[in-house]
Amino acid sequence: MKDDIILLGHGSGGKLSHQLLDQVIIPLLSQVERSDQNDAAILSGISGDQIAFTTDSYVVDPIMFPGGNIGDLAINGTVNDLAMSGARPLAISVGLILEEGLAIDDLRTILAAMKAAADRAQVRIVTGDTKVVPRGKGDRIFINTSGVGVFDHGLRPAGNGAKPGDKVLINGAIGEHGMAVLASREGLDLQSEIVTDSAALNFMVQQLLARHGDAVHVLRDPTRGGVATTLKEIALQSEVDICLDEAQLPVSSAVAGACAILGLDPLFVANEGKLLALVRGDTAAAALETMQGCEFGAEARIIGEVVKSSPGRVLMRTSIGGLRALEMLAGEQLPRIC
Amino acid sequence: MKDDIILLGHGSGGKLSHQLLDQVIIPLLSQVERSDQNDAAILSGISGDQIAFTTDSYVVDPIMFPGGNIGDLAINGTVNDLAMSGARPLAISVGLILEEGLAIDDLRTILAAMKAAADRAQVRIVTGDTKVVPRGKGDRIFINTSGVGVFDHGLRPAGNGAKPGDKVLINGAIGEHGMAVLASREGLDLQSEIVTDSAALNFMVQQLLARHGDAVHVLRDPTRGGVATTLKEIALQSEVDICLDEAQLPVSSAVAGACAILGLDPLFVANEGKLLALVRGDTAAAALETMQGCEFGAEARIIGEVVKSSPGRVLMRTSIGGLRALEMLAGEQLPRIC
Repeated sequence: MKDDIILLGHGSGGKLSHQLLDQVIIPLLSQVERSDQNDAAILSGISGDQIAFTTDSYVVDPIMFPGGNIGDLAINGTVNDLAMSGARPLAISVGLILEEGLAIDDLRTILAAMKAAADRAQVRIVTGDTKVVPRGKGDRIFINTSGVGVFDHGLRPAGNGAKPGDKVLINGAIGEHGMAVLASREGLDLQSEIVTDSAALNFMVQQLLARHGDAVHVLRDPTRGGVATTLKEIALQSEVDICLDEAQLPVSSAVAGACAILGLDPLFVANEGKLLALVRGDTAAAALETMQGCEFGAEARIIGEVVKSSPGRVLMRTSIGGLRALEMLAGEQLPRIC
Repeated sequence: MKDDIILLGHGSGGKLSHQLLDQVIIPLLSQVERSDQNDAAILSGISGDQIAFTTDSYVVDPIMFPGGNIGDLAINGTVNDLAMSGARPLAISVGLILEEGLAIDDLRTILAAMKAAADRAQVRIVTGDTKVVPRGKGDRIFINTSGVGVFDHGLRPAGNGAKPGDKVLINGAIGEHGMAVLASREGLDLQSEIVTDSAALNFMVQQLLARHGDAVHVLRDPTRGGVATTLKEIALQSEVDICLDEAQLPVSSAVAGACAILGLDPLFVANEGKLLALVRGDTAAAALETMQGCEFGAEARIIGEVVKSSPGRVLMRTSIGGLRALEMLAGEQLPRIC
């Protein structure tokens, strides 16, 4: 099947579907024996009476971009959604919607990236589904990843947990994923290439919760809509005001430059390897140190604080000393960023 | 938003996304408060150390067809995948991929059908995700439903469990879903309309397992590829020969007629409310009675048996006394049937 393309028949459920499954998907994604292929996977080792459950579909365009592709993006995204709830990611499902005509070699590249990302995050791909749509009714490949996580502790950080006095921490520079995808899509000729920050943050979360426990009030990954939209969501859920310090916002010069050219604000640009942690004020410095000691956390910073109970505003102290109110992303700044 | 259509901005993660979520999706699908909206849902009430986990994407064309639409189809399909593993369906995630331009009223119709189907099956929709792709890069709506189920017992029927002497039971007429979709798509002018059999079979499975326990060796729903393909999969997984009795196959005259016109074999046409149960021979009559006493089971029949250990053939004793070997569906008989 090396030089082949996806045919409608690969979605039939019949012989061609089994060929694709046996020759391409199963060898690359997981090690399920044919005799164990059933309608549902059975997961063992569930402890406690709670699990976390999440879903995300990925429709990013282009499907390959600097630093990654739609495959590792989909795994990391779902791993992160589970991690932000405090859960240890256990298992992931993969739902593929393929457009007739997709090169099977491209599919292989994407599946291999999924497997590598799952291995890095120590999560298993346990079940899947493949559908095929006719040419012009899809766009090469869409991927749904759903995930199940388990809790090794009683901690449940959540969007409604922010309290006045909390500090807002982030593990590094913002806007990298969105600008990497956009620059690649638009063929921007930048001096230095921008690479996606797509990464699995579950081990960082594990460290934060193990060391700082219930002082970690909120964990969220600022993906679509960027840091500003995610903080606005938290402000509304927790009924607090959050105040950012513009001078502390980590933005690389490449991202800042590309944003300036395109008239975009990096605060609204998607990240795929960043987390926002809202941590009790007296623990923030220690939590910052923990993040800085983790992979993907070297550039962690405190970028703001929760200032008071209120209807939920996000304000930014600008470099020139003013206060600017941030709202959620309006309209579609960057379509199909994940 | 009544007369509105889906815009790219509805997939931004920002204001329009929240509007769609707050005004259309949440009110119709589930009752999650804004303050409880997080990256992952937390499910309580997990008992035991195993869960079932499954995923399925739905790309059916047309999205509305006699007897249902893509929404209830997606819920029933995932409920059934969980049920076939012996699990009690607990929670479902909904991943929507919307094409720019979809009428929001159509989305409402579909979401309402999902909610009604989930309520009937007593399963909760707990988490979701919405993406939007530009016009011409999708086809109105694709839905991924993933599901989590729990086990109330130690029974694990599976595709590799068939044994010589087992009887093959089915809960009613075959090919209804596939022919309903196809007739609707092709505008076939049939004397009597064919209606999808889409239904949740979890309560039937619960009855079968409660009454007949480990005599129920295999449970599978014959969706894409139909009864023939599913039985061939079971024959291969269990390394047995399965022999069907053509005279016993339940096919409605409407489906038989439409299949004859189109040159299709109902054995290969998709079902969405049927299950195949392979049950120990001495228990088959009682299991048949159980099925016949359940909703969606009045027309249940014994259609064949497992004849011996072998490399995995499916044979059919034809009405005129011959033996015909059935293989998996080759090529794509009916694209986008689910």
